[in-house]
Amino acid sequence: MKPVVFAFPDNEDIAQDLVAHLGAELGEMNVHRFPDGETVTRILTPVAGRKVILVCTLDRPDEKFLPLIFAAATLRDLGALEVGLIAPYLCYLRQDERFRDGEGITARYFAKALGQWIDWILTVDPHLHRINSLSDIYRVPSAVVHAAPAISGWIRENVSNPLVIGPDNESKQWVAAVADKAGAPYLVLEKTRFGDREVAISMPENISGSNYTPVLVDDIISTGKTMIKTVENLVTQGTPPPICIGIHAIFAETAYQDFQITGVTKLITTNSIQHPSNVIDLSTLIANSVKHLLKS
Amino acid sequence: MKPVVFAFPDNEDIAQDLVAHLGAELGEMNVHRFPDGETVTRILTPVAGRKVILVCTLDRPDEKFLPLIFAAATLRDLGALEVGLIAPYLCYLRQDERFRDGEGITARYFAKALGQWIDWILTVDPHLHRINSLSDIYRVPSAVVHAAPAISGWIRENVSNPLVIGPDNESKQWVAAVADKAGAPYLVLEKTRFGDREVAISMPENISGSNYTPVLVDDIISTGKTMIKTVENLVTQGTPPPICIGIHAIFAETAYQDFQITGVTKLITTNSIQHPSNVIDLSTLIANSVKHLLKS
Repeated sequence: MKPVVFAFPDNEDIAQDLVAHLGAELGEMNVHRFPDGETVTRILTPVAGRKVILVCTLDRPDEKFLPLIFAAATLRDLGALEVGLIAPYLCYLRQDERFRDGEGITARYFAKALGQWIDWILTVDPHLHRINSLSDIYRVPSAVVHAAPAISGWIRENVSNPLVIGPDNESKQWVAAVADKAGAPYLVLEKTRFGDREVAISMPENISGSNYTPVLVDDIISTGKTMIKTVENLVTQGTPPPICIGIHAIFAETAYQDFQITGVTKLITTNSIQHPSNVIDLSTLIANSVKHLLKS
Repeated sequence: MKPVVFAFPDNEDIAQDLVAHLGAELGEMNVHRFPDGETVTRILTPVAGRKVILVCTLDRPDEKFLPLIFAAATLRDLGALEVGLIAPYLCYLRQDERFRDGEGITARYFAKALGQWIDWILTVDPHLHRINSLSDIYRVPSAVVHAAPAISGWIRENVSNPLVIGPDNESKQWVAAVADKAGAPYLVLEKTRFGDREVAISMPENISGSNYTPVLVDDIISTGKTMIKTVENLVTQGTPPPICIGIHAIFAETAYQDFQITGVTKLITTNSIQHPSNVIDLSTLIANSVKHLLKS
């Protein structure tokens, strides 16, 4: 029998593309919120004896967690053979050690809380630093899809004379890979973080005379402060209008509006989180990876 | 060493009262929300080798769940001897069976998800129907505090000639106990529910000539529709202005404002959920029950 794909709210578009790539069935599910703030999930497609895939990207995760595990538990109660989770954006990876006395290591707690309800997890470019691999914190099989090839492809087709610019040293390897496949040079900035919303970044070397089109890339656009500061620095230098690319379109608080003010001409993201800026489709890459997970 | 009590936001008042009754220490904890919607908890009071109590009432639970289990996990990481949870209102007890095909039994899933992070749980009058006891769904020790004595006491001291009125047959035993200890007669209505927000209730027998003061009691005030309908029926009959008492002050959506319009003169609740209507203090009853849990 075909596997069944269930999409959480705001995941319908990518789920539909995945269904097409996988030759799967799109299942029907309701997530109902009662007036008192509790939720109940209802599965309307038969799942007994079938492999099931939940699609639920995990930006703004606190409100999403219980409905997600309720859906997984319900599917199991209804006889699903296995329940896999595609979370194109996977949350709670930043707090991967005790940065200050008394803090929790939420990356580990979240993985423990989520992992027990699902049979496998797939995500796109997880934000891993001190944790080497998802398998360090998730006991269930995990798979990682890399957006770099899709981003490189977009740059190659849409930008003449690109210079790929990464936000910090942590991103260097990834930025180098994007640039390499785009056939472009790259440089990496230095970032100092002073708090949740305050960052300082090094000025890019003077590239105003080079006629390169700056292409800023980052994995997560959250408050967008880093990118916005960089854009301002570049504009001051008189470079051609920078292009901004993010994998995960979180756009916390007023971030998306903040970008409009900056005068960025192109701000594009992948569809790992549904957002008006989505341009780069990841469904083919994700579907290919899912096929391996379903086989095993 | 004294046990340490940590209060989640909006639980500070009752936590402070509990600390006084228990001779415990009030611990300092931060729940920080990052711009991207993730949270991190930070414990600022030493807990190694100590018994710890978290106070977190669980109305509107979806947003509260992850911060709560993160705090519990952090406390354990920091060496707490045991981590108990006082949730004066305990959520996810209504969906205790599969009411419609394909629905999840969230009462069971939630208990499983929460129970593994704590050593015991205490709540006030949990909304149990088809589940007989919290121990059917929670594997950790649980304790239940009954608000009835406190409510009866308030009625005795504040209402002359009370007639206690319960919303439905499910509440009969509880309403009878409240009335008995208040030295008052009681009657129970019949409720038919048509949806999340629509209910019909039977007219109380004609009590307008009796000069009784109607005292409506219910365990949870969520949308308040049941109580408001009953108040309207009574007012039409020309009874003295009804008094409304709820244990758990959820007041979903516009419920609290809806009551003002009805012309209820007195709407009071216990402090199981912090709310302007709180009048009946449960901290003594809760503290007495906690003492038994801490001893064992």
